[in-house]
Amino acid sequence: MASSKNLSRFWEWGRKIICVGRNYAEHAKELKNAVPTEPVLFLKSPSAYVREGAPILMPYYTNNLHHEVELGVVIGKGGKDIAQASAMDHVEGYALCLDMTARDMQDQCKQKGLPWTLAKAFDTSCPVSDLISKDTIKDPHNIRIWLKVNDILRQEGSTSSMIFSIPYLISYISRVITLEEGDLILTGTPKGVAAVQEDDEMVAGIDDIISMKFQIKKQS
Amino acid sequence: MASSKNLSRFWEWGRKIICVGRNYAEHAKELKNAVPTEPVLFLKSPSAYVREGAPILMPYYTNNLHHEVELGVVIGKGGKDIAQASAMDHVEGYALCLDMTARDMQDQCKQKGLPWTLAKAFDTSCPVSDLISKDTIKDPHNIRIWLKVNDILRQEGSTSSMIFSIPYLISYISRVITLEEGDLILTGTPKGVAAVQEDDEMVAGIDDIISMKFQIKKQS
Ligand SMILES: [Mg+2]
Ligand SMILES: [Mg+2]
Ligand SMILES: [Mg+2]
Repeated sequence: MASSKNLSRFWEWGRKIICVGRNYAEHAKELKNAVPTEPVLFLKSPSAYVREGAPILMPYYTNNLHHEVELGVVIGKGGKDIAQASAMDHVEGYALCLDMTARDMQDQCKQKGLPWTLAKAFDTSCPVSDLISKDTIKDPHNIRIWLKVNDILRQEGSTSSMIFSIPYLISYISRVITLEEGDLILTGTPKGVAAVQEDDEMVAGIDDIISMKFQIKKQS
Repeated sequence: MASSKNLSRFWEWGRKIICVGRNYAEHAKELKNAVPTEPVLFLKSPSAYVREGAPILMPYYTNNLHHEVELGVVIGKGGKDIAQASAMDHVEGYALCLDMTARDMQDQCKQKGLPWTLAKAFDTSCPVSDLISKDTIKDPHNIRIWLKVNDILRQEGSTSSMIFSIPYLISYISRVITLEEGDLILTGTPKGVAAVQEDDEMVAGIDDIISMKFQIKKQS
């Protein structure tokens, strides 16, 4: 199986998107959430993937669609119960990702104790860049991720501010959910999340290594 | 793509498990939840699949692992914005499924407004039978699903008691999340959910059409 798959197009066949919430203390605080003592995990389905050139579609049930720019970790070698010490051996590379969030729906879900699916897992909720090699990002805990909306900088943060490191996350997740080749882990967003409107244009980047552009449209 | 995939082994390559909560009024009530006015959706990842012969592993963080026997709907033809009238054309067949649930963790998540991932999406949380053809189950809204633990009947209900029908669910879900070939929808559980212990043996079935057996073990 593995040999027939092209990891540089992981979004076409990868089976899991595992997201970490509240992994930057200042973002947890801006949404009035406690800084977590263990990772907050949620899932998107692979139908959430969208690539540059296609629009992000605002779901029919939201009036408050937020951007969250995040570093994605692409799994190259699957595993279960992975030790932190060997966790980076399972990483094929990285991707720049957005965790698009229907914040009004998420607030309702939190209040009612309901799962976050409608808030987080809708189609086009996971814009994703090309795969970035480990050679290109030598230290994933020391890069700057940023996002502009209509040319105005809205989010900017260093991955050095993550509460839980990438090896910690891989180890923690793989005790619960087996990781497979082509899986993606979203590692959380720095502060500055805010709403976007129809026709807004977002440009996100990692340092000057990569950038990507997406436009917002309404679901028809 | 489609032609190379074997739908009779959808769990090996299918990319989504979309679950519906509280779709039987008496089950909603037994957990003191409101009867929903629209479907409650949550996700499992495909790593949750487990087949007869392998054990269900109780996650390290739970002391209250519950069984939920459910009818699964296997998607044969993908689609988006599917109309109720044509929804059954997208169904390849059915599967008997369990939605294993760490109830103590789910209670915590509900209370804290956190996503249900640890409660619902852990490895082996989705035991699944062979694919059952549409010829075998002519009316999926009029079958009896049941589950025994150590030979004692614990759950038994007719799919005629579902709040939201299969066409309604397919239509509703596909407005939010595109359905693909090999996806599985779990349609909710009737009343009688309860805890299982290490070494318990569960046998679940659909009428006398199919049955499957699983044993509970602890995660090592
Ligand atoms: Mg969830
Ligand atoms: Mg996020
Ligand atoms: Mg269930």
